[in-house]
Formats: sequence, C-alpha cells, structure tokens
Amino acid sequence: MRELNIAVIPGDGIGPEVIPQAVAALEAAAASHGGLRIAAESFPWGSEHYLEHGHVMPDDGPERLAGFDAILAGPVGDPRIPDTVTVWGLILALRQAFDQYVNLRPAQLLTGVRGPLADVPPESVDMVFVRENTEGEYGGAGGRVHRDRPAEVAVETSVFTRSGIERIVRYAFEHARAAGRRRVTSATKSNALRHAMPLWDEVFAEVAADYADIEHDSCLIDALVARMVSRPDSLDVVVASNLFGDILTDLGAAIAGSMGLAPSANLDPTRRSPSLFQAIHGSAPDIAGRGIANPIAEIWSAAMLLEFAGEQEAGAALMEAVRETVADPARRTTDLGGSASTAEVGTAVCAAVAARA
Amino acid sequence: MRELNIAVIPGDGIGPEVIPQAVAALEAAAASHGGLRIAAESFPWGSEHYLEHGHVMPDDGPERLAGFDAILAGPVGDPRIPDTVTVWGLILALRQAFDQYVNLRPAQLLTGVRGPLADVPPESVDMVFVRENTEGEYGGAGGRVHRDRPAEVAVETSVFTRSGIERIVRYAFEHARAAGRRRVTSATKSNALRHAMPLWDEVFAEVAADYADIEHDSCLIDALVARMVSRPDSLDVVVASNLFGDILTDLGAAIAGSMGLAPSANLDPTRRSPSLFQAIHGSAPDIAGRGIANPIAEIWSAAMLLEFAGEQEAGAALMEAVRETVADPARRTTDLGGSASTAEVGTAVCAAVAARA
Ligand SMILES: CC(C)[C@H](C(=O)O)[C@@H](O)C(=O)O
Ligand SMILES: CC(C)[C@H](C(=O)O)[C@@H](O)C(=O)O
Repeated sequence: MRELNIAVIPGDGIGPEVIPQAVAALEAAAASHGGLRIAAESFPWGSEHYLEHGHVMPDDGPERLAGFDAILAGPVGDPRIPDTVTVWGLILALRQAFDQYVNLRPAQLLTGVRGPLADVPPESVDMVFVRENTEGEYGGAGGRVHRDRPAEVAVETSVFTRSGIERIVRYAFEHARAAGRRRVTSATKSNALRHAMPLWDEVFAEVAADYADIEHDSCLIDALVARMVSRPDSLDVVVASNLFGDILTDLGAAIAGSMGLAPSANLDPTRRSPSLFQAIHGSAPDIAGRGIANPIAEIWSAAMLLEFAGEQEAGAALMEAVRETVADPARRTTDLGGSASTAEVGTAVCAAVAARA
Repeated sequence: MRELNIAVIPGDGIGPEVIPQAVAALEAAAASHGGLRIAAESFPWGSEHYLEHGHVMPDDGPERLAGFDAILAGPVGDPRIPDTVTVWGLILALRQAFDQYVNLRPAQLLTGVRGPLADVPPESVDMVFVRENTEGEYGGAGGRVHRDRPAEVAVETSVFTRSGIERIVRYAFEHARAAGRRRVTSATKSNALRHAMPLWDEVFAEVAADYADIEHDSCLIDALVARMVSRPDSLDVVVASNLFGDILTDLGAAIAGSMGLAPSANLDPTRRSPSLFQAIHGSAPDIAGRGIANPIAEIWSAAMLLEFAGEQEAGAALMEAVRETVADPARRTTDLGGSASTAEVGTAVCAAVAARA
C-alpha cells in the first residue's frame, strides 16, 4: 500500500477550522479510491508561532518539509502582525525555496453556485490560471532611501528571466494540451512596462509557435480584467506573471461565486521539491472561531494534491464529491447563501466520496 | 466672452470618429451654458505621423501644447506599430512632461445601461478612481541584459516617492470632501511588494489622519478586484498607484456597462501645465471606419474638461445631456445593444445640451 507523507500547516484564523476537513477528505478519498494511506504530520507555524518565537516558521523550516510528498497549507495572516512578515516568513519563502514555479488555479462556476455575473451560463466560467510563482514582481528586490523624510524614495524591482518566463509559458501550453483545452491567453502590459513585459511577450510568442494545436492570444492586463467580466467564455487557460496572476485569480474566484471555493496548487513540476496546496482565501479573522468558514477551497486543493501525486482516481473522486456537495443547497456555508457549518460540509464531502467507492 | 483654447489630438482608429463629436458637444455646451467660446486647434499626431515622420509627436510637442487651456485627446495605437512606441511617444510622455499626476476616472452605471453584474441596483455602481499618473510602476525605469540569450534578464523598477504618494492621496481625500463622498479606499499590495507598498500604506495612513470626516480603508489589490464585482456598493473613492489604477479603471468601465462610456481626466491640479482629457478606451481598429463607435466616453471627458476649467454650469449641462442620451434606447451604439451611429449619438447630445439652455 502506497503511503503519502503530507506536511500539514493549519495556519491562522479559519485555517485550523478548514484544514482538518481537508485532511479528513484526503484520507477518505485515499482510502476508498486509491488504496492509499495518508500519513499527515502537522506543523504549528504561523502568527502564534511568530508571536512566541519571533519567526513565522523556524529557519530550518524548508529543510524539515523537504522530505514530504506534499504540503497542505492553510492561510497565514493576523491583524496583529504586518502582512509582509507573515507572508515573506512562510508562503513566499516556501514558493521560492522549493522553486514552486507554477501556481495553478482553476476558476470554475460549479453547478448550483450563483456567481455575480448576470446572464452567464455556468459552463462559460471555466478557466485555469497558470501563474508564475517565483520571480517577477514578487522577487522581493528593492529598498527605501531617505526613510521617513520628505525626500523618501522606495523602489520595487520586478526581475524576469527568460528561462523563468519560458518554463511557465511552456507549462501553460502543456497543461492546455493535457487538459484538452483550446486556447492560452497571455496577460501582458508591455505597452507601459516597457522593459520586462516585452520580454514576456517575445518568449510567449516563441513558445506558442511550438504548439500549433493550441490557439493563443495576448491581452493587456487592464483589458483582461474587463474581458473576464464581460466575456468570460472567451478565456480558457490564462498564463500570467506573479502579480497579474494574483490579481486575476481573486477576480476569477469572485466570478466563480466565492473566495471560499477557490483552490490553488503551488507546483514544482520537476518534483525535486514538495509542492504546496492551499486555498486562495486569507485567514478571515472576521469569521474565525465560529465554525462557519467554507472548507471547500481547501478540500479542492487537497484534490489537486492527489492528482499531482499521481492519484488521479482518488483526486477525481474527491472532486466529484465536492461538486455533489456544493450542488446541494443544504450543504452550503453562508458565503454561498446557505447555513451549513464547516464541519457539516466537510462531513458531507467525506460521505459523498466514500459512497462513490 | 471667455475663450477656451483647446488642443485637440484626434489620434488613431476610432479617435478621428469620436473626437469631432466631443468637440461639437463642447462647443454646444459652452455656447448655450457658459457664454464661452471654444477655440480648437487640431494636432495630427499618432500612428500615421509616426509612420511618416518617425515619431508619434514632434520633439517639441509638449512645448507646442503648453500654452493651451486644455488638451482633448483620442486614443493612440495601431496594430502596425509596437504599443511601447505609441504609448511612450505620446500619452505617457505628456502625463510626465505636464506633471499630470492625477488621473481621475469615474465609474458609474448610468440609468438605462445594463452592466454585467446581476442584482446590482444602478446606484450601487458609483465610484471615482484617483489614479497616480506620473511615477510608480510606469516610471519607465529598467532594462534588459543578455538580450536574446538564454541567460536574459529584464528588470522593471517601480519608483515611488513620498511626495508623489502624498499629493495623490491628498487629492483623493480633497476630492471626496468636495464631492460629498464618504469613503476613500486605498489599493495596496504591501504584503508581497514589500518595499514600495509599505511606504504607500504609511503615507496613506498619515494623510487619512488629516481627514477625520472621511472614512478610509486599505484593501489588497487582489481582494479589491473581487470586491468590485461582489460588493461594488462598498466602494466610493478609490486611490491607487499607476498600474493598479489602470487595472481597476478598466474593470470599473466594464462593470459600468461599456468601455465606450468611460471617461478620464489627466490633471495637473497646480494648473502650471494644461490637463488632458481622454476616453479610457483604445483605438479599436476592429471597428474603426464604420461610424459605430460610442462617442460618449470622449464627450464625458469633455464635460470633465469644462468642469476643471471652472465652467461648472456648462460641464454639468453636458453631463446631463449625456445621461439623457444614454437613457434613450434609440440613441445607443452597438456596445450598449443599440444601433445608433457615432454621429447620431453625438448629435443627440448636442441637441439635448442646447435644449437645456
Ligand atoms: C499572501 C499573498 C502573498 C499571496 C500572493 O499574493 O501571492 C496571496 O494573495 C495569494 O494569492 O496566494
Ligand atoms: C495606453 C496605456 C499606457 C494607458 C495606461 O495604461 O495608462 C491606458 O491603458 C490607460 O488606462 O490610460
């Protein structure tokens, strides 16, 4: 029997509420569909850890995670601590340490969910975002001079490498081909960002030439956000830089009906390092502790984990269980207009996945 | 009788179709409501000029415009020329040359227009974006090394100055106060962009402290695009950096129903240099030459011109004429589901503004 060793980082706020549901769902799917065993080890890193120890995760955090098959993480963030600290102390650090250069984020209007767009048949919101995840705008380069004086200047430098762009664009086309998708759209802003984005465009055009079977187009980021709300059906796979992908995927989550549904996979496709699976949403301190957070985004992320681990059957079964659960009005949390609790939704998914065995 | 000297740059694509309508509307409003005379001088700058002369505008372009009271511009852009050339050759150059540090962009769902959001009462989409327009991500700093080799690296450096942030944030609060608006929301991404955006946040907090009568909040750009589609009524005045403002205003235009309606004002509030008024939309080569482009975005921009020129009555009358025209299904262009021509819409606005005299 295959054992999958999963490092679990529950994180902050609603994290410790939704993560146990995702772990339970993972176990249910693995047991009933993959003949797998899930061995989960929990790491109490995040804001409490920072307040006690002065770091969000220990310095040897990446080392301690390196041997796992995958990482399942909750959101990290706390009103008492500057976001730069929590974010650079864990999630951005791990993306870079493990060279998880792909951030894969589906945005799909699930059956039964009402999104904010009028006149949109559900099947017309079905996009996959392939976000660059290790460089670009979030490389971390920059600084401040004349601090706190009137003459103060702050610079933030985006660093794009040809190889970094090439690998993410290639991944997008490969993903499109494997998933039977027809089109890859590149998010750009080469008219105004005149140094880095022309390189992005050039590499996109070069790579696209290798995939004659897949349509492609380039779209300015400003036009692209407008297009997402006015013609969502014109988008299929979207490849974007770190910042643009970040912005597009929150908008994608919103038009797919709720941040509480949106999953993500931070992948190192070379498999030299573990990949990390995590809901897109934040720690939501406003609703934490009340047992009402939607666990679906983390559960869907867990389904992506199974799929990336080569457990297609278990992953697909879990995803079907998610669809079944969300389609049932009695099993929706408040963000979807329902009144089910976090635990009720999680339990329903586990039951649905077991019932499919 | 006051004479307003307006430099007119029709630009490319649909520009030469919509700009004459905006000039006519300006004249109609000025004559019947301000007792004003409009003296318009046209400058044939743009892509044809570039193809003939090798520059989008002559080197002394800013000098030649400097003496005008205002500039009314159409879109510039042509599929035959790289966007970096057209954009840096005219619009970005003028914003910087004239220190037009405010880009003011209302996004309002006008009566009769159907936007893409379901269940949204029209009055709940009524935002004003105050976009920084001279520095930040669009400062133009950066470069490429190892060009065209596998080791190539491109950098794009955002440069934010304390004074540049302060003046735009202060403008946003002053605008909110003058317009009777209640809240200013700041678009940020200080968690990931850890050098420049914390400075932005600090200055925002400092300036906000001077405006106890106006509510304020900070919102991460990713959360903000989601909020625009899920809770548009929670937004009133939004202050944003150059890039973030660019993205937010196209999304704003989309949720207000059409890019064909969205105006903008590039302002130098010190009035040392002329300000520039221009629709947000592009040159739309796909529909150029057919007489079907919506002239409202340029006409609305012209109304902002009158208002900034101190001609409140003429500006308000023109804006009322715009509302009246758009509310009439027989006077809507194809982007709004109608079949009226550019000229029909322009003529209707002129008639409406004259009728109000
Ligand atoms: C927490 C933050 C740095 C992160 C990001 O911007 O990448 C988040 O918004 C996301 O989308 O995963
Ligand atoms: C043409 C382009 C540089 C410009 C911008 O991005 O500022 C446009 O998109 C706008 O919003 O005015």
